[in-house]
Amino acid sequence: MTIEYATPHRARSFLPPDPTRPYFVEKGLGDRAHLFTDLVTVYCGGEQTENTFNFFTVEGPKGDLIPAHVHPETYEVFYVTDGAVRLFVEDLEGEQHEKLLTSGDFGFVPKNCAHAYRVERDHSRIVGVAAGPSGTYERFFENLGTPTEALGLPAEPYIPAPADFGRAQREFDVRFLPGFEWRTAD
Amino acid sequence: MTIEYATPHRARSFLPPDPTRPYFVEKGLGDRAHLFTDLVTVYCGGEQTENTFNFFTVEGPKGDLIPAHVHPETYEVFYVTDGAVRLFVEDLEGEQHEKLLTSGDFGFVPKNCAHAYRVERDHSRIVGVAAGPSGTYERFFENLGTPTEALGLPAEPYIPAPADFGRAQREFDVRFLPGFEWRTAD
Repeated sequence: MTIEYATPHRARSFLPPDPTRPYFVEKGLGDRAHLFTDLVTVYCGGEQTENTFNFFTVEGPKGDLIPAHVHPETYEVFYVTDGAVRLFVEDLEGEQHEKLLTSGDFGFVPKNCAHAYRVERDHSRIVGVAAGPSGTYERFFENLGTPTEALGLPAEPYIPAPADFGRAQREFDVRFLPGFEWRTAD
Repeated sequence: MTIEYATPHRARSFLPPDPTRPYFVEKGLGDRAHLFTDLVTVYCGGEQTENTFNFFTVEGPKGDLIPAHVHPETYEVFYVTDGAVRLFVEDLEGEQHEKLLTSGDFGFVPKNCAHAYRVERDHSRIVGVAAGPSGTYERFFENLGTPTEALGLPAEPYIPAPADFGRAQREFDVRFLPGFEWRTAD
């Protein structure tokens, strides 16, 4: 049952573009995108789950804090399987929290909570789920970033143009927070 | 931010019983249950996500095929982080498929597809998400099984009484399929 599908997102994908078919995806062979220094791999999303949830991985090298942002309608899971990732979250009362997550650790970010993270070890991997009652937004990464057929991290960082951030914000459930300060951060 | 909450499910839990609070859970410290030979750990679910999705792990020793079942309204993810798990799925046309999943491999089971799995190596771990448009059912495991404060696998298998299967079927989105045969299986 290693079937490849032509989908709205890829000429060849292991993700069937409807919610009726069981499927398997071997490690790393989901729908891949490069964004900044990271590789994002989508294993399921809105088409497969009637817009209920998605499932993806983010792999990256040790690097910088990503831009702070919120999701007005989306709950987000950070489950680290490899390496170490420092997660920063501001709660709805404005209190800021940070936690170093290593293999097997879990972080949960409710909708409307500002958050960011920093990969603290090379070869880190986060498993993510990001969904809410209004749907899923797993194609954000390849819209702000770029789809790729390659395996592995970007050879060079993929830096979106400034206008791409605005477009991504209009099309997906994300709002960037320029100038946001993490008072907990080093 | 290591806060413990009294919730409908545990006297002490790291999972806040409402969807407004960010939180972190260190490895293995989610809401735990024993079922047969396995340890199920819930990291988030309906209370945290407005009934959108859940996130849990299943850890088990090398063992037998679990009972075949379907979820009439639930899509289910099997993402293996450790060990090896053989996933069996029957598609809606009645064709049966099986795949050995090892670390980083992914399997997707749509609603109404009969499925089962067999843990093929000791110390295996599956990350699971099981949700659909009608909600989440992550408390199935501790209802058919038993909640535990212990860390690690059951010292002795926890075998539900026959009546417990019927009760679990009435309360959760699961239907067992007694007598179901996997024609692909060894």
